[in-house]
Amino acid sequence: MNLIDLIEKKKQGKAHSKDEINFIIKSLIDGKASDAQVSAWLMAVCFKGLSEDETANLTEALGASGKIIDFGELSNLVVDKHSTGGVGDKVTITLIPLLASAGIPVAKLADRGLGLAAGTVDKLESIPHLNTNLSTETIVNQVKNINAVIASQADDLAPADKKLYALRNITGTADSDVLIASSIISKKIASGAKNIILDVKYGAGAFMKSPEDAVHLSKLMVNIGKKVDKSVTAVITSMEEPLGRAVGNSLEVIEAIEFLKGNIESGDLAELTYSIGAMTLMQLDLYDDKHEAEIYLKELVCSGKALEKFRELIIAQGGAVEVIDNYDKFDLPSFKVECESKKSGYVHNINAYNIARAIKMLGADKSNNIDKTDFSVGVYLNKKSGEYVNKGEILYTIYSNDEDKTKIAQRFCDEAFSINEGKPLHHNLIYKIISSKEEDEDV
Amino acid sequence: MNLIDLIEKKKQGKAHSKDEINFIIKSLIDGKASDAQVSAWLMAVCFKGLSEDETANLTEALGASGKIIDFGELSNLVVDKHSTGGVGDKVTITLIPLLASAGIPVAKLADRGLGLAAGTVDKLESIPHLNTNLSTETIVNQVKNINAVIASQADDLAPADKKLYALRNITGTADSDVLIASSIISKKIASGAKNIILDVKYGAGAFMKSPEDAVHLSKLMVNIGKKVDKSVTAVITSMEEPLGRAVGNSLEVIEAIEFLKGNIESGDLAELTYSIGAMTLMQLDLYDDKHEAEIYLKELVCSGKALEKFRELIIAQGGAVEVIDNYDKFDLPSFKVECESKKSGYVHNINAYNIARAIKMLGADKSNNIDKTDFSVGVYLNKKSGEYVNKGEILYTIYSNDEDKTKIAQRFCDEAFSINEGKPLHHNLIYKIISSKEEDEDV
Repeated sequence: MNLIDLIEKKKQGKAHSKDEINFIIKSLIDGKASDAQVSAWLMAVCFKGLSEDETANLTEALGASGKIIDFGELSNLVVDKHSTGGVGDKVTITLIPLLASAGIPVAKLADRGLGLAAGTVDKLESIPHLNTNLSTETIVNQVKNINAVIASQADDLAPADKKLYALRNITGTADSDVLIASSIISKKIASGAKNIILDVKYGAGAFMKSPEDAVHLSKLMVNIGKKVDKSVTAVITSMEEPLGRAVGNSLEVIEAIEFLKGNIESGDLAELTYSIGAMTLMQLDLYDDKHEAEIYLKELVCSGKALEKFRELIIAQGGAVEVIDNYDKFDLPSFKVECESKKSGYVHNINAYNIARAIKMLGADKSNNIDKTDFSVGVYLNKKSGEYVNKGEILYTIYSNDEDKTKIAQRFCDEAFSINEGKPLHHNLIYKIISSKEEDEDV
Repeated sequence: MNLIDLIEKKKQGKAHSKDEINFIIKSLIDGKASDAQVSAWLMAVCFKGLSEDETANLTEALGASGKIIDFGELSNLVVDKHSTGGVGDKVTITLIPLLASAGIPVAKLADRGLGLAAGTVDKLESIPHLNTNLSTETIVNQVKNINAVIASQADDLAPADKKLYALRNITGTADSDVLIASSIISKKIASGAKNIILDVKYGAGAFMKSPEDAVHLSKLMVNIGKKVDKSVTAVITSMEEPLGRAVGNSLEVIEAIEFLKGNIESGDLAELTYSIGAMTLMQLDLYDDKHEAEIYLKELVCSGKALEKFRELIIAQGGAVEVIDNYDKFDLPSFKVECESKKSGYVHNINAYNIARAIKMLGADKSNNIDKTDFSVGVYLNKKSGEYVNKGEILYTIYSNDEDKTKIAQRFCDEAFSINEGKPLHHNLIYKIISSKEEDEDV
């Protein structure tokens, strides 16, 4: 087998055999394929695509390219949750303790920030001393001990995916559906969880702009999941506007803690956490009825059990658990600016992309690889879509350490808000749920 | 400007500005673009193409990426000839001395072998001690002194093209028309000749399989030539069957010498040499009529002036000039095998691809990068298309140094010949001529 011939084959739109896919990934790992060759192949894949079989074979080859975590007798129970990334998305931080407090073993292998959104690892690291660089052994033990872990994806898990991912990022080949799907599911193969819950986002603040694209990607991942013996549920959700009110690392963790304390009972963050949580319980056959599952999860929040689980997780990973009761223990920003609405009316939309640009400007996101992440800065949305604001009332608050950057961030935030007289229509947060267990479900 | 954005742009099929093309090539040269990025861009170009303006801009950027040879007052007169490569193609070796003997300054910057065919440099180096690695200064001086030079393309000429060429060869992106065209013409920009004569080949023994593809590429090169201020004539010729009777390094040089001695007055080698020569004289406005130009060139051969010029060239480049009068001064093969025809009939075709495989097997072509070129080996076609052969008569002769390889080469050669009872139709060697000076000319 010869790599040039395989590139030519894909360029001509022909399908690769399983052996050919394995050969490409093996060559990538052992360095026999040059970056030039792999990148040319990636671009050919962008133009000609991969069949579902090819994608499943690629996924397996990437997933098996390094260590695979073995949870032993827990293997079939362990849940991993993944979001394709959104602005203000702290559902991992609310959901993992919640599910763990329901007795479900949850092992979340998380990424750092990418593109528009900061990653869960960045956010969690705003808790002083909290360590997400855990060994495979520590991950397995922590799940066995307290049912929950949130760790960064170690270098020895799916190393071929890491290489491919790095190449995709610099060669304009990041946006291929089959490459996205195989990358996500391959990491889940390596992370050892049998049950995968995917939050697939679309809209202004997401990678995918249309719900149709998100559905397409979700079906692809659910189908690949079937082929590689994973149980997959994909919840397709809108990311037109930031999730919750807080955007920025420590601000988002504080909002997640407020949720776990039972102080946030409604709104998009609560809705999404309970929905995805309930879908997980149903996927594991613990509940048949979504509504009943949600009631059970709400009890776990109200009783303080979910918060208790988060405490255990922070302690287990060496973090400063006192942040839960004293938010001043987080890194604090130098100042905050409360920004008033320039007109009266209903908020119709808050463009997530513009808020993400503001966040980047403030320094809360190091995905540009230039600055260090500033955990303290961010934006708090005092008003969300559907709420009425009077002219002069506070619309949003900027937390910052730099006055010049604040001014630019403020411009981005002002641009983000659409305010009009009439009351806006309510938009569904959840567009569709696709599961390897169930038929498609429109919501 | 950002390379990833430019890759994305081409991926979406949008056109690059001149600045963008320059940025890509500058990044390639100074190492700011990784091989991965350039290769992804090349693959995107294969799918989305380049407009004629983009191609001209790429050609200029590649051509200007290193030194450009300056022939001073001769600049507008100097001719360079290029063949896209064919089996048994020794027209460079016949034509350069012939044109030089007509008083035309000719500077041929030649390649080594690529793909199916050995390069002119390989062939010429079968003349003991002949040196083709000449400095820019030597090239200019030799043209001024004796009107002729055949040198290998130095590393400091069009270095960006060399890099791109190397990447194209390993990434399945070699066959893009715009990349082929820009590569060829960029080298001619660097080599400083104003007048470019292209022999664009199609058929079993050529890169391009159909005459339509060759016409398309020729038009592209002629049009790029106009944009970069070069006078270009493209002669589109058939390469179904090897050119002339000799294939192999020293065998081809001997056949070229035989032509220059006036011993080969008809057949495809003579036809093509005189035709391309005449087209060159017409391009330089020295003749209006092709037939008259050919008569003049034939006189230069008959009078011995063309051979005398080749003698001067060999001496100037340090070669063993005695080979001209004594072919035993070439490296000699250990043995030859005269292969008889297994049936009687007319030769209808000799598949150039199969002959090339035989040549490769014998070791006359080091384009596989494994073996050293064996100058002495090759195949001599005792019969060519249109000629009658009796069963048992010698059809071809193999010159070899290895008995096992000879057997395999013989199988390839036997497969190459089509022999049938009826007399074959005569196929035109020259399909079309396209010139920046003239209208298209069907032949």
